[in-house]
Amino acid sequence: MSVEGVISNPSLKRVSIIGLGLMGGSLAMALRRAGLVAHIVGCGRTALTQRALELGVIDSGTVDAGESVAESDFVFLCTPVETSIRLLAQIAPRLKPEALVSDVGSTKQAFAAAAREIFGPSAAERVLPGHPLAGRELSGLANASAELFEGCVWVLTPLARAELTAAPRNLQSALEAIGAHVIFSTPQEHDRILAYTSHLPQMLSTALALTLEQAFRADDPGLQIHAGGLHSMLRLAGSEPAMWEQIAASNRKNIASALESLEAEVRKLRESLGSADFRQRFEKAREFAKFLKD
Amino acid sequence: MSVEGVISNPSLKRVSIIGLGLMGGSLAMALRRAGLVAHIVGCGRTALTQRALELGVIDSGTVDAGESVAESDFVFLCTPVETSIRLLAQIAPRLKPEALVSDVGSTKQAFAAAAREIFGPSAAERVLPGHPLAGRELSGLANASAELFEGCVWVLTPLARAELTAAPRNLQSALEAIGAHVIFSTPQEHDRILAYTSHLPQMLSTALALTLEQAFRADDPGLQIHAGGLHSMLRLAGSEPAMWEQIAASNRKNIASALESLEAEVRKLRESLGSADFRQRFEKAREFAKFLKD
Repeated sequence: MSVEGVISNPSLKRVSIIGLGLMGGSLAMALRRAGLVAHIVGCGRTALTQRALELGVIDSGTVDAGESVAESDFVFLCTPVETSIRLLAQIAPRLKPEALVSDVGSTKQAFAAAAREIFGPSAAERVLPGHPLAGRELSGLANASAELFEGCVWVLTPLARAELTAAPRNLQSALEAIGAHVIFSTPQEHDRILAYTSHLPQMLSTALALTLEQAFRADDPGLQIHAGGLHSMLRLAGSEPAMWEQIAASNRKNIASALESLEAEVRKLRESLGSADFRQRFEKAREFAKFLKD
Repeated sequence: MSVEGVISNPSLKRVSIIGLGLMGGSLAMALRRAGLVAHIVGCGRTALTQRALELGVIDSGTVDAGESVAESDFVFLCTPVETSIRLLAQIAPRLKPEALVSDVGSTKQAFAAAAREIFGPSAAERVLPGHPLAGRELSGLANASAELFEGCVWVLTPLARAELTAAPRNLQSALEAIGAHVIFSTPQEHDRILAYTSHLPQMLSTALALTLEQAFRADDPGLQIHAGGLHSMLRLAGSEPAMWEQIAASNRKNIASALESLEAEVRKLRESLGSADFRQRFEKAREFAKFLKD
């Protein structure tokens, strides 16, 4: 479907974006730049909504989530997982029956379960959970950019296996028009995979920082002596604690399982130091890393 | 000391570089570009020596390490740790008495111990172990560059606490002239610090790759679903196995101890998922990571 096809579709006329941080701000900018939406309602704290209006990122703003969705065709919850769950319950009674709600949360099972609880049998038509893999260590509207989603994978996790109706198809087209590569998964599979490919690397980087913090005084001159690889391994440790607290809580079981596997691999690697087995493990890891990069 | 001062010093006239890979090749290029050496003798396998001669990186070449050092004032062993130890024994009888030998190995205790065994009481005057923190996942002469050491920390680990004599001072000046920031440490302290700041990040990246390799089939389409952070955490896993095998063997005890600390931190982080303690740990790690970056 071409961009023009999307624009001419009246179901994209009015979009609400709740949460005007890095994700919500960037989404508003990207949709605006692509000319996909006639009117964007922004919802966030007063100062933030004001700033978004000044930047021309949204057309109208409010601090009241319920009010923000009243006439919209699409609603994006762009807040951390637990906040989005709370907001979903709050906006539910105010939504138009044909409106479609999506989100950008880093885990999907808890949000999907909340949607089922709130909307019952119609949940699959009312809510289409999503997750753009376009995070940064940076956060906030000040770091938002219309280009954030260019080339990123945007996972949509429908609540039921069924042919997509018009609204989800329009959502998919809009996301593709702002540069995202849309793929489909289930909330359960999404969370299991992300535990390994996103949450595990994050926890590792954080654990590495904690280990170094234990081994050195912060002002230890020895910390000058390090290779470039250290900074790249510590980059993720600088991520937003509030967001990760919610990811950790909402995907606890999968993350714990991934961490247990990692602990086993670290132990085996440690026990193999100086033996032929080490070389073999190192080469297996290298092949996998190269494969994933290609 | 200015570059001119170094050039005028006759003790830098003839330099041998044994091993013409990324490190040896880059060192030859950098010394050449800085105009610091009248004659560079390269030593490596026939094809490599030939290539280095063609590139104009060395002035003469040989496959015989003993022959390569016979008339040199400075000798750099630019091979992995265990190879450098073997070569040190081999070149010892051919060295001029006033020649200074250095190396670029990633660990220093094993090399320092070998130097003491080979040279006895004069070891501290004959050998000044070194380690430029300028590694890359790339290796080989094809990736060598005169800029490799610009801005890098180059650790020198004298075998004895004493005033540096003329030769080590000239070595230090030459390294500074090619852009390195020279700092001094002891072989023991160097290896303990590097276990945390270089070897630990490497092992972590390798263990992460092994964990993912266990969790996914290599062609699993789920692997598409990952954040940018995954690639940065897997970058080091692509490093050269031969080099890391020798690092692991020569610094086994320190690396094992660093890995044990990490395992404890991973376990504590895993057990804190979903609790208030998680947030606290995450924030502590974040502060440390930010501090180190600044």
